[in-house]
Amino acid sequence: MNEQLLLRNIRGVLARLEDTILFAIIERAQFKQNAVIYRPGAMGDMTGGDSLVGYLLHETEKIHARMRRFTSPDEHPFYRNLPKPILPRLRFDESPLQPNSINLNPDIRHAYETGIIPLVCQDGDDQQYGSSSVCDVQCLPAISRRVHFGKFVAESKYLATPGRFNPVIRARNSETLMDLITDEKIEAEVLDRVERKARTYSRGQEASEGVAGIAPATARRLYRDWIMPLNKKVQVLYLLQRPPG
Amino acid sequence: MNEQLLLRNIRGVLARLEDTILFAIIERAQFKQNAVIYRPGAMGDMTGGDSLVGYLLHETEKIHARMRRFTSPDEHPFYRNLPKPILPRLRFDESPLQPNSINLNPDIRHAYETGIIPLVCQDGDDQQYGSSSVCDVQCLPAISRRVHFGKFVAESKYLATPGRFNPVIRARNSETLMDLITDEKIEAEVLDRVERKARTYSRGQEASEGVAGIAPATARRLYRDWIMPLNKKVQVLYLLQRPPG
Repeated sequence: MNEQLLLRNIRGVLARLEDTILFAIIERAQFKQNAVIYRPGAMGDMTGGDSLVGYLLHETEKIHARMRRFTSPDEHPFYRNLPKPILPRLRFDESPLQPNSINLNPDIRHAYETGIIPLVCQDGDDQQYGSSSVCDVQCLPAISRRVHFGKFVAESKYLATPGRFNPVIRARNSETLMDLITDEKIEAEVLDRVERKARTYSRGQEASEGVAGIAPATARRLYRDWIMPLNKKVQVLYLLQRPPG
Repeated sequence: MNEQLLLRNIRGVLARLEDTILFAIIERAQFKQNAVIYRPGAMGDMTGGDSLVGYLLHETEKIHARMRRFTSPDEHPFYRNLPKPILPRLRFDESPLQPNSINLNPDIRHAYETGIIPLVCQDGDDQQYGSSSVCDVQCLPAISRRVHFGKFVAESKYLATPGRFNPVIRARNSETLMDLITDEKIEAEVLDRVERKARTYSRGQEASEGVAGIAPATARRLYRDWIMPLNKKVQVLYLLQRPPG
């Protein structure tokens, strides 16, 4: 099997991404919610009708597209019509996935702006719009990568037992697919680990003389209520698009 | 005294920046040194003769300049000729510092590319040029902010005992200024705390099934050999430019 599809390797990447996501969320949690940065047009004409975060995300994706970021099968842009890469393609870019058109970034952005920000940031406005937006443009792609890694997870699970999946894919039965990809024991382990990491990182933060981190229970909810459901949605959508063998 | 100059507040920001820097460095340390990304022109015409990291840094600063990043007295750009902000000025932007022209970013970039990267990353080339560059563009401004915070530290120390500093500033005696701003006890505390944080974060990392972090001793060296000397250099240069009272 392609080494990118070994469940052991996928779980390593997902665990690594937990740190990236928690680090980025802790940075964002320094600032208040600053709801105005998510409101399209609120910053005037210069953002072309987009929100401040949208503008910054789009401009950043234009640069990262030139860095070849979105030729990688585990990266998904939030914006379309991005410029071509200036770096040659990498061998890593060959996808072990079946062709698919799944990009849940609109859902991720909605979840982030309306669910995750109120969960991790204090209510209110501290005028730190630039800094907050820069943090958001760290958080969103990290969460997107974690969520869309569901494609690798789903392909790996499919290849392990194609006979279990083929009839359910042919019947287009989303509910049974959701049951097949769900492993409650692993999910509980991930939630415990995320909570433990948040506690560890908050201990690091305490040394910083009381600067805000995020509570371990908040980190758990971030995963339980937002990241994991979106990841499982990707898995099911991927399998529905996958040609049964 | 301006609250941005209270040594207690400054030390809080500096401690917070330790987390930001360690998080960013841990991300970069996932990848090999990839020396080619620091070589001007090595990626061809598209980077306009700059290195890949330089190109990405410059393009990112153009966007962040529009987000008003560099109107803040604690932010220093690596590039000149950046576009004007699209956000109005903030009250935070009023500087409690004396006017000065100190920008050690050329030194910081040289230290980073020739000293810090070999310290924290494995030797070699893993072709992850885009990802490594994206990490560098996290690390460099974080280190720059930490180093240039020396201006606030120096101003605060000056205001606490102007009578000790005035004759030394008038005599332009850099060596005595360095003695005056040096507090070995505080420096030892910072190094111990940085080492402890790196250990804490590495414990978080170990939960990620053996993915690389950075060794506590490496974090200590990063501060002892690079970040602190540059910070102290900023303090001395700032005082040399400061009009004695």
